[in-house]
Parts: sequence; structure tokens; C-alpha cells
Amino acid sequence: MSVFLDACFKRPVAHTPVWIMRQAGRYLPQYRAVREKVKFLELCKTPELAAEVTRQPVDILGVDAAILFSDILVVPEAMGMELILDDRGPQFPEPLRSSADVGKLLVPDPSEKLRFVADTIRLLRKDLRVPLIGFCGAPWTLAAYMIEGKTSRSFEKAKAALLGDESLADALLSKITDALIAYLNLQLEAGAQALQIFDSWAGALGPDDYARLGAPYVKRLISGLKRQSQPVIVFGVETGELLGQLAQTGADVVGVDWRVSLDEARKRTGPSVALQGNLDPAALFLPEDKLRPRVARVLEQAKAAGPGHIFNLGHGILPGTPVANVQALVRQVHGD
Amino acid sequence: MSVFLDACFKRPVAHTPVWIMRQAGRYLPQYRAVREKVKFLELCKTPELAAEVTRQPVDILGVDAAILFSDILVVPEAMGMELILDDRGPQFPEPLRSSADVGKLLVPDPSEKLRFVADTIRLLRKDLRVPLIGFCGAPWTLAAYMIEGKTSRSFEKAKAALLGDESLADALLSKITDALIAYLNLQLEAGAQALQIFDSWAGALGPDDYARLGAPYVKRLISGLKRQSQPVIVFGVETGELLGQLAQTGADVVGVDWRVSLDEARKRTGPSVALQGNLDPAALFLPEDKLRPRVARVLEQAKAAGPGHIFNLGHGILPGTPVANVQALVRQVHGD
Repeated sequence: MSVFLDACFKRPVAHTPVWIMRQAGRYLPQYRAVREKVKFLELCKTPELAAEVTRQPVDILGVDAAILFSDILVVPEAMGMELILDDRGPQFPEPLRSSADVGKLLVPDPSEKLRFVADTIRLLRKDLRVPLIGFCGAPWTLAAYMIEGKTSRSFEKAKAALLGDESLADALLSKITDALIAYLNLQLEAGAQALQIFDSWAGALGPDDYARLGAPYVKRLISGLKRQSQPVIVFGVETGELLGQLAQTGADVVGVDWRVSLDEARKRTGPSVALQGNLDPAALFLPEDKLRPRVARVLEQAKAAGPGHIFNLGHGILPGTPVANVQALVRQVHGD
Repeated sequence: MSVFLDACFKRPVAHTPVWIMRQAGRYLPQYRAVREKVKFLELCKTPELAAEVTRQPVDILGVDAAILFSDILVVPEAMGMELILDDRGPQFPEPLRSSADVGKLLVPDPSEKLRFVADTIRLLRKDLRVPLIGFCGAPWTLAAYMIEGKTSRSFEKAKAALLGDESLADALLSKITDALIAYLNLQLEAGAQALQIFDSWAGALGPDDYARLGAPYVKRLISGLKRQSQPVIVFGVETGELLGQLAQTGADVVGVDWRVSLDEARKRTGPSVALQGNLDPAALFLPEDKLRPRVARVLEQAKAAGPGHIFNLGHGILPGTPVANVQALVRQVHGD
């Protein structure tokens, strides 16, 4: 029994469940203590440590779900691209430049190349007292990183490559989708109890382009999963105009950023999915008397949107967020 | 007679007018040649040179309006803040930290401190053959820069300061608004034939917060203008949920980013305003056979949205954009 899983399927719950995107991360002193000893990518690939930081927010915050500590870019790395993660953000020193580059990408056997993820999940399932969410990046978002070579504001290289050459686009996005299907199925076999697909850069595409490069591959990814009863959540930022498409991917839950109120989001998704979100992450920097009414407002808008709400932020928690405010948020959502 | 001004007021036009945000800028070799000789801020403050780069795209691209070459941050500088503009982007080394800092800000006499802008406008009006658009940043966007000290992705300092202290917020935003009223009135007196208010960071605020920190001050700014018949355009990015508020500010034209189709935007603005936009700037990196149908689609959606369309990009033109593609875009919009 889990309020989180129940809410994902729009079943009645005693209280609204809550978890926080990037809840294991550098706003927590306990996380920083672990990170002092290892680099980010080493942390992802060391199951004992990845499991430790995955557990931290469950104890510290009292959230209703844990999310695997990892990074969406381990998949392109397993596909054969060199990945550097440092203070400048993620970088692929040799980004994709041609269809020959796309041809060279592997669809890896994740039980070899991404085994550390399965091992982390198995370790966590021994003692974790809340459901464990596995995750991956969506095909468009990973393709955009692999072409740009790093975070971009405008993604002109990725858009020019993928909108300018339909067969290249389909070859790349299909290959990534195949890799992700195997990767998420490995997570499910290892014990992941829910999955979130991060289409972080979805909002860089207008609705017509997302209908070509984004949604179809998310849909194919979800339909390739060997699920028992594990829900799938799909999330991106700046997706106000894409919520209808996201709701039609086969996902059980659509994450909503803070720009769209949940009752308005409901009009765009239709009634079939649960909604996740959507407090502005910056609100956690406000004093508690200013934070409380904002949390209450999200809960009200969720109520107006109808059954099926998982409380979360509208984007990842920000570095420097006061932990006490996150704890207060969780207590308030729980009605404590 | 100007197709641009006519379209701003939803009057019939022989063809759709077009101009490009950041049309004077580093994608143009002729601009880069001028910039080799002077720093960015010096260029803004040297009327002959600012007028020269303002004129360039009119000749090179054949656009239907010119926009003053300047920067929105010259106003905070005139209010007393040290401004550095270099390759790292704009910075205020001493960002606002307290209500005492806000108290120290000046409401400058723009005819002294921002005289270079009026001089540039007067120079341009001698020989410019298309209407000249003046501009400023919106109060919220300027306040966000002045508190963050630089571009931010999440604006937690600005939001914490302004959402956490209502009287501080009103004091700062009112002071900026007063400075902007005087500044835009100076531009009108000098000969600006239209004005654009850039609320670049509007989309960082959810709708409730924009209704407190954003729209009311844009409205007050517009109502303080001594206009004859010069239209006002208001524009921001990621404003899908804010279009209704923007249409209620008293602006004649609402700029739309590329995420929302113009026919959908029309449902949110209502019929009173003209619409400006909204090709994805990244589309200009596509070959002409892929670009053409995208331009045609924007024109179709604009037609569906009803009278009053100024063609533009959905955000500023990107560095590296091929000039020939921009020229082809202008010809296509003109029906040549």
C-alpha cells in the first residue's frame, strides 16, 4: 500500500503524496558530505553510495517516494559517447555531427553497461520503506544533448539537424528509444516500482515539432515497457502547449511545471492521467508564512483538477534551498 | 503610411509587415565590423554608431521597421548601478540587497543621463525610411536583473526578495516604472514612432505572481506615456499563460514566443490587440526548402487569428544565423 502509487492511478488516498525532483542533491548537507569523497559520475556508478544518497531524503524530509540517484546522460555514455560531468555542466566532447556518427552508436546491453543502476535498485529494495522511482531522459532530450554536446539555451544545432533531415532524426531517435526500452526494462526487473521519463527540453520545441520529434518516441518507449503495475510519469518544463500530447503518450501521470495551474493543466490533459506538481522551486526560499499559502494554493488547484495528484515542485529543487522549508512543505502536504 | 504601423492598429495592409528582434546584431558581418572598433556599451552611447547599426538591417534585410540599437540595462545604470557588459553577459557587480539599496536608486532625468538615446533617435529620424521602434525593459525584468546581478535561470533571489516583501517590491517596481515613463517619453519626444516593452523574464513568473509583480507595472508604465499615435508592443518569452494579462496592459500589440501558435494566442489575448511573432529562431538554420513551409505556417496561423499581424521571430535572432535565410524570410512574408 502506498499513497504515491495509489495517486498515480487516481485511486483514493488518505493524504496527498509528495516527493521532490532532485530531492537527493546538493541542497542537503548529508549529500554534500558524500560528494566530497567522490565525483558525480563515480557516485552514480557506485551502488552503495548511490543507494545511500537515494535514501537520504526519505529520512530527512519524510517524502512518499524515493527516486534513484543517477543521471539521464549515462545512457548516451553507454551508447558509446564520452561523457564529462563537472562544474561546467555535462559535456560530450565529441557531439554527433553526421549520420555516420549516429550509425556508430550502440544499442547497449544495459545489464552489462548499466549494471550499476540495476545493482543500486536491488540494494535499495532491500530496505527502502517507500516506493522507488526509476528514470531516464526522453529520446528528444537525450538527442538534443548528444548533438549540442552540452546544455543549450536555443538548441539550434539539434533542431537544424533533426528538423532538417527526417531520416537522420528517425534513425537517431529510434536508436535512443530502443536503448531506453532495454534500460527501463532492466530497472523494472531490478525492482523499480515506478518510472519517470524526463523530457527536460520538451519545451524548446513548438507543438508541431514536438509532435514529430518528441511525443511519438515517448509513446513508443512506454509501449515497449514490460510493466506489471508500475506507473509511468512523464515530465518536462515549459510544456504548457504540450500537455495534451504528453497525456496521450500512454503515461499514467503528467508532470506540470509551475507556469500552468493544475486546474488549467487538467483542461489540456483530459481526465485520463494523474497530475504531478507544481510549486515554483523558488518559493522554497520564502519564509514559512509566505510559503504556506503557496503550498495551499497548489493543493486547492489540484483539488479543482480532480482525483490523482502527486505534490512536487514544478522543476528540480534549487541548490541553496533551506532544508527546513522543504520539511515544512512535506508536513503541510501531509496535513500534519 | 507604413504597413508596420497600420498592422499595429489592425488596419488593412497590402502585405504582412516584418521585422526581427535583435535584427541589428552579431549575425551581421556589417555589425561585427563596427563592433571591432568599440565595446558594446560604448556603441550604445555613441549616437552616430548606434544609428549606423540600427540602419543596417533595413538595407540588408528589407524589413519594415527599425529598432533602436541599445540595451535595456542602460536604465538601471542611469539609476545609479554600475553595469558591466562583456562576454560573460551583463553584470551588476553590486546587485540590490536591501531596501536601503532601493532607497538609494535615482529616478534620473533621462534628458541628461540617457541623452545619447534621444540623440540617436533624432539622427535616425533624419533619413530612416521605415518607422523607428524605441524600447525599454519592463519593470519586473529590470528588477530581476538588478537583484540577481546577472542573468539567472531560476531567479530565486529576485523572487524571494519581491515575493517575500510586498512593500520592498512596490517601492522598487514603482521607482523603475517612474524612470521608464520618463525614459520612454524622452524617446517619443525625440521621434520614436513605436515602442516595445521587453518583459524578457515574464515567463519566469507563474500567472499569480505575474499579476502581482509584472502586469500592473507594465500597465502603469503604458498609461504614463505621452503618445500621439505611437503604438506600444509588449513582449516576453514563455508567456503562454500570461497572454491574457499582457493584452490587458493597454498595449496595442502583444508579442508571442514560438511555443504558442498565433491562433491559440488569439484565444488568450482576445480581439483587442494585434499579434507579433512567432517563428522559432532556430528555424533560420534550416535550408530554404525546410524554412519556407514553416514561414507559411506562421502566416496561416496568423490569418486564422484575424487582422493585426506583424511577422517576427518568437525570440531574438541567434548568433550564427545565415543572413541569406533572413533575407529569404523577408521576401516570403512580403509575398515577393
